[in-house]
Amino acid sequence: MTKKESPWDERKKSVMRVRSKVLHEARSWLTEHGFYEVQGPVIMPAIAEWKSYFRLRYYDLDAVLSQGLGPYAKVFIANLGRTYAISPSFRAEMVNGDRRLTEYWLIEAGIPHGNLEAIMEIQERLVTHICQHLPIDIGETTIQKAIARLKRIRSPFPRLTYSKAIDLLRDEGYDVQWGATLEYRHEKALSVQFKTPFFISRFPISIETYSYRNCPENPMLTLSVDLLAPEGYGELSSGGEPAIGEEMLKKMKEEEMNLDEQKWYASIEEMGSTFHSGFAMGVERLIQWLCSLEHITDASAFPRLHNCLYP
Amino acid sequence: MTKKESPWDERKKSVMRVRSKVLHEARSWLTEHGFYEVQGPVIMPAIAEWKSYFRLRYYDLDAVLSQGLGPYAKVFIANLGRTYAISPSFRAEMVNGDRRLTEYWLIEAGIPHGNLEAIMEIQERLVTHICQHLPIDIGETTIQKAIARLKRIRSPFPRLTYSKAIDLLRDEGYDVQWGATLEYRHEKALSVQFKTPFFISRFPISIETYSYRNCPENPMLTLSVDLLAPEGYGELSSGGEPAIGEEMLKKMKEEEMNLDEQKWYASIEEMGSTFHSGFAMGVERLIQWLCSLEHITDASAFPRLHNCLYP
Repeated sequence: MTKKESPWDERKKSVMRVRSKVLHEARSWLTEHGFYEVQGPVIMPAIAEWKSYFRLRYYDLDAVLSQGLGPYAKVFIANLGRTYAISPSFRAEMVNGDRRLTEYWLIEAGIPHGNLEAIMEIQERLVTHICQHLPIDIGETTIQKAIARLKRIRSPFPRLTYSKAIDLLRDEGYDVQWGATLEYRHEKALSVQFKTPFFISRFPISIETYSYRNCPENPMLTLSVDLLAPEGYGELSSGGEPAIGEEMLKKMKEEEMNLDEQKWYASIEEMGSTFHSGFAMGVERLIQWLCSLEHITDASAFPRLHNCLYP
Repeated sequence: MTKKESPWDERKKSVMRVRSKVLHEARSWLTEHGFYEVQGPVIMPAIAEWKSYFRLRYYDLDAVLSQGLGPYAKVFIANLGRTYAISPSFRAEMVNGDRRLTEYWLIEAGIPHGNLEAIMEIQERLVTHICQHLPIDIGETTIQKAIARLKRIRSPFPRLTYSKAIDLLRDEGYDVQWGATLEYRHEKALSVQFKTPFFISRFPISIETYSYRNCPENPMLTLSVDLLAPEGYGELSSGGEPAIGEEMLKKMKEEEMNLDEQKWYASIEEMGSTFHSGFAMGVERLIQWLCSLEHITDASAFPRLHNCLYP
């Protein structure tokens, strides 16, 4: 074995420097705006209904690896106010190829008594701050060009509802049903129409948004919102106004979730619970868009993919 | 279920605010001193010799949860220079009680071409910076008192060698053999003699320090160093000058580690490798000492203990 002092190419080094700077600017903005940093548990009790979680044996217990703060977020928000976490998250995708990482980092933030509009504002200001503060001379030429193109990003970002997004897709000739999940090709078709990130809000309750509060004006919709990158890079974040307390327990019963999960949920709420809005933004997806990377694997130093842990 | 807006007591809230501030100050100091933030993988290939790791099935592969950057650190350092990571770490302790967490966060930092003295200086300056920058008025009375007592912490910190530490313990009447691991009671006996954190360096190769370079003046010792808290709080960090390249492979063979691990190690080094020194500091142990907490569980919002995942 020959010792190789520096075998990453200049592009990879540049991306990793951008990644470090992005997290630094995200934290700076959040700290300046009154957010406390917190850390939730990575190892969580295994819940039967949960799909796509990595499972492990925790002594005599069944456990899973976290996919974000989940119900712990409301405890932090109830007790500390505005809070954020930047931490690893895990998803056991059963797909080959390199479109999704199984291990990725999330920027999560929440504001007490915030509504959907408030959490959209936080996100557009945060992303704009990052775009405006990334230095252009941070590295190799293609990365310099990518960063330079971000200087035109300004808030506010455009806002669509899910229903409006369906209309736009139909205008483009897509045969998509109202109530269906937006597939990657749909997100891409929408996102090439925009030059800045944009929001899609108020998804139907049918497409895995039951954990958010129902829209007062239409109980088939929830107070949920995704942030999509422009130029076809797909979803940057998900969020909304999570249901809490009795409303959440009612929703869990409607979804026929088991009693164990309801007990676990209630035990967490005992530690504090307040209405809030929040979001979870994928760090690697953000870096991929910021740096104009073809593959999300290039946004991670040691990417973890389906069935591959090497090195 | 009654919704409880804020059931953490003032003390717990204060500790969590201190925790947030400690990480903020740690990052500020590291960023100001030229360190890039990085993230290593949490899910790693399972190596047969590795004890006390949580194991999980990763599709068709056997995997473990990380206990720190390990060999990935040298890739970051070779390619980016000074780097640090603040990330979760996992240890499957087979002990009951609440003296150790199974899930904890580590502050890890490394400097290219740094020696043992350099990494001691980084740590004492970092810890002193944190102590001097924590606001006294951050919360509840006992925490205020704890923070106030930190204002006398100044670098440099006292430096002992392992051999000197054994002498001191014998002077105190402990029947401890040269070459034995320092137990918790030994660390405590030493640490009540100091009013600031202090270093113990150059541990024998026999006590799980084989991954560090041998001391040039005595090959029975390694270039390893622990930082201990005063007042009986125990070990804050471990570190040293890791062996790399052929030297590390030779050590792995001497330890009779299997070929798979050697291959995996070599494949990581292919991505970059440089001599360096570094350390890994336990966030919760640091918070416990800073806040004078009796239990390390009080330093974590949702502590994970042996056989307990609730809530």
